[in-house]
Amino acid sequence: MSSAAQASALELFEHHRATLERAVEAIVRRDYWSPHGESLKQYPEESVKGAQAAFDGLLNRHFELQGPKAVGRIGAERSPYGFDLGVTYDQYDREELLTRMQQALPAWRDAGAKARVGACLEIVRRLAALSPTMAHAVMHTSGQGYMMAFQAGGAHAQDRALEALAYAWRAMAEVPEAACWTKPQGKADPLVLDKRWHIVPRGLSLVIGCATFPTWNTYPGLFASLVTGNPVLVKPHPAAILPVAMSVRVAQDVLGELGFDPALVSLVVDSAEAPVSQVLALDPRVKLVDFTGSSTFGNWLEENARQAQVFTEKAGVNSVIIDSVRDLKAAARNLAFSLSLYSGQMCTTTQAIYVPRGGIRNGEERVSFDAVAQALASAVRGFLADNERACGVLGAIQSEATAERILACRELGEILLDSESREHPQFPGARVRTPLLLKVDAADRAAFGEERFGPIAFVIATDDSAHSLQVAGEVLKEKGAMTLGVYSTDAEFLDRAETFAQEVAVALSVNLDGGVFVNQSAAFSDFHATGGNPAANASITGGAFVTRRFVVVQSRRHAPVEGA
Amino acid sequence: MSSAAQASALELFEHHRATLERAVEAIVRRDYWSPHGESLKQYPEESVKGAQAAFDGLLNRHFELQGPKAVGRIGAERSPYGFDLGVTYDQYDREELLTRMQQALPAWRDAGAKARVGACLEIVRRLAALSPTMAHAVMHTSGQGYMMAFQAGGAHAQDRALEALAYAWRAMAEVPEAACWTKPQGKADPLVLDKRWHIVPRGLSLVIGCATFPTWNTYPGLFASLVTGNPVLVKPHPAAILPVAMSVRVAQDVLGELGFDPALVSLVVDSAEAPVSQVLALDPRVKLVDFTGSSTFGNWLEENARQAQVFTEKAGVNSVIIDSVRDLKAAARNLAFSLSLYSGQMCTTTQAIYVPRGGIRNGEERVSFDAVAQALASAVRGFLADNERACGVLGAIQSEATAERILACRELGEILLDSESREHPQFPGARVRTPLLLKVDAADRAAFGEERFGPIAFVIATDDSAHSLQVAGEVLKEKGAMTLGVYSTDAEFLDRAETFAQEVAVALSVNLDGGVFVNQSAAFSDFHATGGNPAANASITGGAFVTRRFVVVQSRRHAPVEGA
Repeated sequence: MSSAAQASALELFEHHRATLERAVEAIVRRDYWSPHGESLKQYPEESVKGAQAAFDGLLNRHFELQGPKAVGRIGAERSPYGFDLGVTYDQYDREELLTRMQQALPAWRDAGAKARVGACLEIVRRLAALSPTMAHAVMHTSGQGYMMAFQAGGAHAQDRALEALAYAWRAMAEVPEAACWTKPQGKADPLVLDKRWHIVPRGLSLVIGCATFPTWNTYPGLFASLVTGNPVLVKPHPAAILPVAMSVRVAQDVLGELGFDPALVSLVVDSAEAPVSQVLALDPRVKLVDFTGSSTFGNWLEENARQAQVFTEKAGVNSVIIDSVRDLKAAARNLAFSLSLYSGQMCTTTQAIYVPRGGIRNGEERVSFDAVAQALASAVRGFLADNERACGVLGAIQSEATAERILACRELGEILLDSESREHPQFPGARVRTPLLLKVDAADRAAFGEERFGPIAFVIATDDSAHSLQVAGEVLKEKGAMTLGVYSTDAEFLDRAETFAQEVAVALSVNLDGGVFVNQSAAFSDFHATGGNPAANASITGGAFVTRRFVVVQSRRHAPVEGA
Repeated sequence: MSSAAQASALELFEHHRATLERAVEAIVRRDYWSPHGESLKQYPEESVKGAQAAFDGLLNRHFELQGPKAVGRIGAERSPYGFDLGVTYDQYDREELLTRMQQALPAWRDAGAKARVGACLEIVRRLAALSPTMAHAVMHTSGQGYMMAFQAGGAHAQDRALEALAYAWRAMAEVPEAACWTKPQGKADPLVLDKRWHIVPRGLSLVIGCATFPTWNTYPGLFASLVTGNPVLVKPHPAAILPVAMSVRVAQDVLGELGFDPALVSLVVDSAEAPVSQVLALDPRVKLVDFTGSSTFGNWLEENARQAQVFTEKAGVNSVIIDSVRDLKAAARNLAFSLSLYSGQMCTTTQAIYVPRGGIRNGEERVSFDAVAQALASAVRGFLADNERACGVLGAIQSEATAERILACRELGEILLDSESREHPQFPGARVRTPLLLKVDAADRAAFGEERFGPIAFVIATDDSAHSLQVAGEVLKEKGAMTLGVYSTDAEFLDRAETFAQEVAVALSVNLDGGVFVNQSAAFSDFHATGGNPAANASITGGAFVTRRFVVVQSRRHAPVEGA
């Protein structure tokens, strides 16, 4: 059971133990905590200064990774900021790759939980050091602005990785490696058994990434599976391979240096024309599937990958219910930021905003529905007035399909605020669009009642706040959501909202009108998705996200008789 | 959120807190522990003396429970010891029952984890007090002997209930009810959020019981679901309703006394001719299904109850691999007890015993395959020589189908030991059968390679121990198993077996030749099933058994500004 690789990984466990223990404490306390800097100032000057060059050095060449003999090369990523990355990646023979990964499993399993945690913590540490460069890769695949790519694609993604490791470590550590079982037998000698328990991985794990958050949404499944002993096939979205490939290289470096097969984490690339996810997801050796993306494919996976434990994050209709506000301008400013950030391409961005058609109370006065709608439109307009700041916040539209969707959705309601194209100060070819804000009636369910991915939001006129809850409840039960915002100065309505959130199993944000936004989700504190509505079948992360990735196998035998 | 019911349940939590904390400690230490007496002497004299009369008082009458207006009565249980129980039970309108249970959910959810744990601990305490009477009900439905029914149907079943509560409590307690989240913002004021987390049940829970262990196999799912907030429909096997109905009554008493709707735990009865499990399992309101029984129906549930989290324990081929022994007689005696106990009707009883055809080493000498086979046959014969003791250990055959299966299986190999009918000293009409032991070749996979439920076992001739591992591995991967026994004096072979057990994800017992048996599984220490092979898709119990029964829904809001 012991090996040089195991011994070295155990050293890493001890080296990183304090961080791990703090992370386990964090998921219990759920106060703010992160070991990963959100400011470039917290990183070594040379790594920040050299980031652009390091990124440029990756472009227009082949990206080398460990794996079986390549049988082809592929890669057609194009930055949403308007240039081709020109990076290619190896393709492998599927049979050869899966066989090799299965062969790598026993040594990784037998190394034990501590050794695997040690190795994974080291991978996260190295990813953290890579953040300034990673930010460029995330920016030029997802379209996120640089600072967002640096934070969400770097520190926050690493937070989610560490969080998954903390949950998995806690779950594995709750099972002792061994115990002596002694059952009294009255006056006779007790029955004594020596027992052992093994954490046994499920098998191969497939993690299917998305184009908008190639690291943030990939790391939880990747690390939760890897640390529990499962070799991981990482299949990025064809439009956002590079950040994933860079992450896989870091993992392979650490695994290889320790003496494990680097192919325990392998990159699988495909194209929109010749996708491989379906075939991989149905392979009998694949026992775990993590997916972020469309409801269509997520539901397909849940229906069809029956040999696997399937974890999906899909589409939903994130909603805000405005009942009454303390300060309409403050609330509108807060929502304007949410609607603008990364052009509404976050899985947590609000799409449906319910407002009573008779208007609402704003502090001591009443304001009309139209005044609320105009306040929202004005707030977005004002927030995006400065083009340079706007472009930094908006980033670029990841896919042409989203840009086209904005145009198509203009027909769905009365335009409160039209979407504009903007010229990016640094990247003239960037696909920059401001949010489209539409006014509709609660009866127009076909318009607002399904996900319109991108910077598209609806202000929906309802009969009253009870009607808002009713319509929102119907939409959320049918389509699901990641986030729900409620604005009310009425304690009774807020109690009702607190219960409502439980009924539809959606995370609730109340009266956000300062520096926290409904679409933000903080690792170690906020559960991302609940797993209880159609937008996601699992929370990322939590106990249920890790415990299904391994089984416990025990052995027992009579204890040696003392003195014998 | 607070109510009189909640307050009373919280008192019960405090009252039982020490037991709960000891149970949580037990699942971590995994040494022997149980608060439930295995000996009748540990129970009040009057409850033991009055047990028979209490049981008789239930017979030939209607069993009253709480629920909606009855729309029919049903019940046709017959004791395997040869008499009709004559008990009938109410049937409800499905729509009315499910609606009522859904209406009962919010109060139970809002009572909170502590209150629910308090109520459930009280239910377990009262079940424990009922054990002497419950033993009769288990005996005369399952066919277990009285002492086994008393232990397995009483104390051990309550252990499994308490174990599920301990796992669920730990999982729920790991999520704080509230926290203040403070994120530093450099020189600016920190961001401060008040956050709350709610444990939200999945919905209605359906627990489908089996005829052989009506309480032991029902309690884990019942208590895991109930304590996490899900109202539970308990659907016993039509041949073993009474012990379940008695358990439901205890749960209803406690819930009702506290002021909750007793229908939070409801009995659903059906008949073999008009089963209701399929319809209930597909009801969109049913979000959790626990099942113990056939692979056919278990697999059907996994395939079809897609709206629910499904936990199954199904058929398998429990195996023993004999490579070499220290003392053949001791090993054979041990196996003889396993094969005889409850006539092999435990889901953990060995069916396939692999022995090299060239014989094995027994201490310092070699013995032939036939000598091993004969030693097993003799051990069973000897153990069952005393008819009164034999009948107490064997109990009765639960169903006529199992009795017929014994006869049908006589054709499957060379008879080493024929099954006999025995006359029970107290119950002349009892269906008592001794084990059938057959000799087959490893090539006869069709004979031994699928579950032959009942007192039917095969001694299988293999080329050598490596071949035993290979054939057993193939069968276990295809059919699964709950238990695996290995006998070997070779440390290297035992290392190989330890790895093998992980590969096939089956609990391993090594060289049992004393007072512990491969088919025994001790709560708080032994995981029952792994969830990693076809015999069961989940372990009962463990972290993964409880975490999928609830989701976590959070809310967050700006913290009130101090002094404002």
